[in-house]
Amino acid sequence: MKKLRSDAVRNRERVLRVAYETFATEGLSVPIDEIARRAGVGAGTVYRHFPTKDALFRAIVADQFDQLIARAAELAGAADPGAAFYGYFSRFIQDYVTDQGLMEAFAGSKFDIETAEPERTAEFKKAIGVLLARAQQAGAVRPDVDVADVKALMIGGQAMLNYRGEAGARLIPLLCKALAP
Amino acid sequence: MKKLRSDAVRNRERVLRVAYETFATEGLSVPIDEIARRAGVGAGTVYRHFPTKDALFRAIVADQFDQLIARAAELAGAADPGAAFYGYFSRFIQDYVTDQGLMEAFAGSKFDIETAEPERTAEFKKAIGVLLARAQQAGAVRPDVDVADVKALMIGGQAMLNYRGEAGARLIPLLCKALAP
Repeated sequence: MKKLRSDAVRNRERVLRVAYETFATEGLSVPIDEIARRAGVGAGTVYRHFPTKDALFRAIVADQFDQLIARAAELAGAADPGAAFYGYFSRFIQDYVTDQGLMEAFAGSKFDIETAEPERTAEFKKAIGVLLARAQQAGAVRPDVDVADVKALMIGGQAMLNYRGEAGARLIPLLCKALAP
Repeated sequence: MKKLRSDAVRNRERVLRVAYETFATEGLSVPIDEIARRAGVGAGTVYRHFPTKDALFRAIVADQFDQLIARAAELAGAADPGAAFYGYFSRFIQDYVTDQGLMEAFAGSKFDIETAEPERTAEFKKAIGVLLARAQQAGAVRPDVDVADVKALMIGGQAMLNYRGEAGARLIPLLCKALAP
């Protein structure tokens, strides 16, 4: 990506955030002009950053991944590796209540979220791997689980919350217990 | 349902079993004549029991529920209530690897599995409730979870296996650990 002036960067971030929230709660049919209006920028600004709706979807997913990777990187130096791991694990599951809307919206579109971001997916798994290894070294997580197991439990936790709604949140600590040594 | 002669009952059961396995692994497009051939009965026999494909779908789902309810009823008198509960819980998750195909197939059809069997759904939850209460009384399951929590964990477990495939099976004991007091 070519360098953007700082107000352009801020505008881009705001558009992505508004688009994410709008699509997640209202579906993909909301027009780009309405996204622009809510983000407080001109429609031209949105179209300059994201020439097509597909480009906008792709950027939202990339942005979500970048946030997940950045959060894991921040926690990788935490003083309590167990708390860092379980905090990340729990928040990932919890956040899905919002993401779910977006995922469902994407599922109905032609946009293939699975194959859109292979490199970021790999980076994300690597970042979880660092948190997991540190927590295992600290004796806070059982040694016989790997990143794929953790991801499976996170996906299971999301399905749990999807079924149970808000009441499902109190089940997240139980899933953490499942990973304790 | 009117009384069926015993060979008719056997034929009906065989057709349901074959139809379940066929739809689960190959999708709903397999013709009824092919189901009849695999079950070793005439197509007329299948159409007599199930006049439409929708009636056949409905009967498969009802049959699956009946089996789940019967299995829970059998285990309700088990000497070890903890083993009975966790055995049922684990098998429910494990069986989903087959059921998943059927569920996906149904998801693509006009057949609404959610509303098709409200009474059997209620009976199923009640049966799990009996196993859960006995296991809690025996001190094998934490006292602060209810049937909806257990169902949420079962659905989460299914999503876990769906993501992780066969390797996910070793995570089921971890989910059991999540329910331990």
